[in-house]
Amino acid sequence: MNRNFDFVSDKRLEGQLDFIIEIDKLKNIARKSMVFDGSHFENDAEHSWTISVLAILLREYANFNVNIEKVIIMLLIHDIVEVYAGDTFLYSAKRSAAHIEEEKSAEKIFGFLEEDQKEYFLSLWKEFEERKTNEAKFATVFDRLEPLVQNYMTQGGTWKKYNVTYQMVIDKTSHIQEGSKEIWDFVKKLLQVCVERGYLAKEE
Amino acid sequence: MNRNFDFVSDKRLEGQLDFIIEIDKLKNIARKSMVFDGSHFENDAEHSWTISVLAILLREYANFNVNIEKVIIMLLIHDIVEVYAGDTFLYSAKRSAAHIEEEKSAEKIFGFLEEDQKEYFLSLWKEFEERKTNEAKFATVFDRLEPLVQNYMTQGGTWKKYNVTYQMVIDKTSHIQEGSKEIWDFVKKLLQVCVERGYLAKEE
Repeated sequence: MNRNFDFVSDKRLEGQLDFIIEIDKLKNIARKSMVFDGSHFENDAEHSWTISVLAILLREYANFNVNIEKVIIMLLIHDIVEVYAGDTFLYSAKRSAAHIEEEKSAEKIFGFLEEDQKEYFLSLWKEFEERKTNEAKFATVFDRLEPLVQNYMTQGGTWKKYNVTYQMVIDKTSHIQEGSKEIWDFVKKLLQVCVERGYLAKEE
Repeated sequence: MNRNFDFVSDKRLEGQLDFIIEIDKLKNIARKSMVFDGSHFENDAEHSWTISVLAILLREYANFNVNIEKVIIMLLIHDIVEVYAGDTFLYSAKRSAAHIEEEKSAEKIFGFLEEDQKEYFLSLWKEFEERKTNEAKFATVFDRLEPLVQNYMTQGGTWKKYNVTYQMVIDKTSHIQEGSKEIWDFVKKLLQVCVERGYLAKEE
């Protein structure tokens, strides 16, 4: 392992600093969808920022009380595992295989930290992935919502490019309603508009 | 004003959605320094993500108890005003003029939201700018720390490019100690190493 901060005598701090250097690689991991103005493919760091702000902005629409601090921290770190595992498209058949890779990746990346912090981040990441707690359900809303709005803003974006249909989108995003019925109502309307405007294909 | 979501009948939600589209412009606002691996100039969204994660990661080094939720939200939104005002280099003589521009910009960008949310974000942004509360002091640590580490990782980066000296850096960053004495100790060591390695000029 590369020691970037060999002049630091405190091993705990050195690990924390090396961790922040390592996760910076997210800025070079491109996602499938473009930022709202279509100027470039979004990277994982930009994505994590947007969905964290979305959670703060739209917290009033949660189906239940949530610990918003936990929701934000989950969202800020949820993609860190992609530093080694890379981004996998939501509609890819390789999503299950990807998950195994991500678990290995999580052990490795959070392993830069001492045991207490490693466990703290690992457990938050697992909680997010399992989508069982209120915080995880609400956090997931924004991870799903952002690309939908991106595809709307870019007149179909990845849907057109990868032949994604209305029903496929519904199947992969309907659990938004478990975190927020109001946001799910918005999404249904959004998808309807996308079909009407020809951004998203619907089988007759 | 462009109505991106004209099919949404709820004006509050429509404003929130337009706000998230508008602040996405931060992803096209380049900062002066490069990401840690030197691959590209960092944009404001990437920067906001990194310093938010840094605050979570290094919270144990705060000089006092902090409300970390507030610290993170401050950091996530602190640069949103640059959507209209642009980024100003820390060592620029135009920093005061820039601040007036930023206040106008803040009114405009948070004006997308209804009064309660506008006031919430405006007051958090002002609290951060004034650096008086514990949360603002601690949040500022990371806004200052990241470019220092970036310049270290890129063998001098913007310091060399703009002839920034050791004393100028000390003058502009020494208030890190108001938020975290331990991180300030690290920064002093880091700057010393930078001088020794020729990344940063020190007057004799």
